[in-house]
Amino acid sequence: MLDHFQNGPGRRAAQAKHAWDRLPFREINGSNWLVIGFGAIGQNVAQRARAFGATVTGVRRNQAPHPAADAIAPIADLPNLLPEADVVVLSIPLTPESRHLADAGFFAAMKTASVLVNVGRGGLVDEDALLAALDAGKPEHALLDVFAVEPLPAESRFWDHPRVTLTPHSSGITTGQHTRNDALFAENLQRFVEGRDLLNLADPKDVLAG
Amino acid sequence: MLDHFQNGPGRRAAQAKHAWDRLPFREINGSNWLVIGFGAIGQNVAQRARAFGATVTGVRRNQAPHPAADAIAPIADLPNLLPEADVVVLSIPLTPESRHLADAGFFAAMKTASVLVNVGRGGLVDEDALLAALDAGKPEHALLDVFAVEPLPAESRFWDHPRVTLTPHSSGITTGQHTRNDALFAENLQRFVEGRDLLNLADPKDVLAG
Repeated sequence: MLDHFQNGPGRRAAQAKHAWDRLPFREINGSNWLVIGFGAIGQNVAQRARAFGATVTGVRRNQAPHPAADAIAPIADLPNLLPEADVVVLSIPLTPESRHLADAGFFAAMKTASVLVNVGRGGLVDEDALLAALDAGKPEHALLDVFAVEPLPAESRFWDHPRVTLTPHSSGITTGQHTRNDALFAENLQRFVEGRDLLNLADPKDVLAG
Repeated sequence: MLDHFQNGPGRRAAQAKHAWDRLPFREINGSNWLVIGFGAIGQNVAQRARAFGATVTGVRRNQAPHPAADAIAPIADLPNLLPEADVVVLSIPLTPESRHLADAGFFAAMKTASVLVNVGRGGLVDEDALLAALDAGKPEHALLDVFAVEPLPAESRFWDHPRVTLTPHSSGITTGQHTRNDALFAENLQRFVEGRDLLNLADPKDVLAG
């Protein structure tokens, strides 16, 4: 997001040609973020975006306020919220209901110069509709970590699309991942032994693979 | 910073060659930041870094705690603080005392794999010493927005150094800059008319140009 808003490609090109081009850039400050799926990932995205001065609306079933969000809304409000959002983040689980949530109508409702981020699952997005929307220039850019078919086939148009920055389902592959996973496992083992509720439970009925 | 920690160049190279390389990356979470000069810029840097889970030590004269910092320290403590810092940010005004604050001894005291960020003034850094330190691999990388001579001469080694990401004194050139400057001017005009203290006062005796 920062690289896109701050025109990273333009800056790198200027450095490469030794050009003192003082390019202006867009601020996160004052931007509206719509975080669809306001679980642990969505809340952590919100915390970081708000530190830069963004306003965040979290979309989830539970309509109780959340300290990491400026507002909470139900998914039924998307038609009203999409036209106001500078950044739309998909961080919702893939279920039969959320499959192809981001379709042609979704992209048509998005704001000019907006950015789509998918760190959820590839199946949340109708990829043909997204490519058509990007060709038409709205969203202005897509940051995609997940795809309907992974690894992404070498012939996919996403690789070379000028409006796409992609990562290979790697937004969680960090130097801190193993430590945190180990801590979570140890905590859940303790909880299991003591008969208490486990953390981060997933319902296998609810969650699709793709 | 994020681009460097997240291996932006490696990710872009993988995308360019259609390679599904799931590269691991370094987290800001858990890193130690030393912000030298804890005024408005330093505090805003700290706020954003902490939202990612960094621990921030602010260096300034006033030793009172600050809500944006985990600790406050005097500049005399740098020899103890530099070996612990993953990221060192220079956001201190350039004065006769701070000129060439970052010299060969400063870089020698920095941690392995640390990053230097200069958003203050070019004169804070002994540039020859920095180039020698980067050649030797410590700091691991430098993010430089300011230089002793600006525009940076086309023949400067900084342009092509593999451990340097540079911007042309443009970290303040944003879409929000004019609105904020106008608001500050209006506020100070009101304060001036009412005989109250002005905001963001600089002492011309204290501040050097370069």
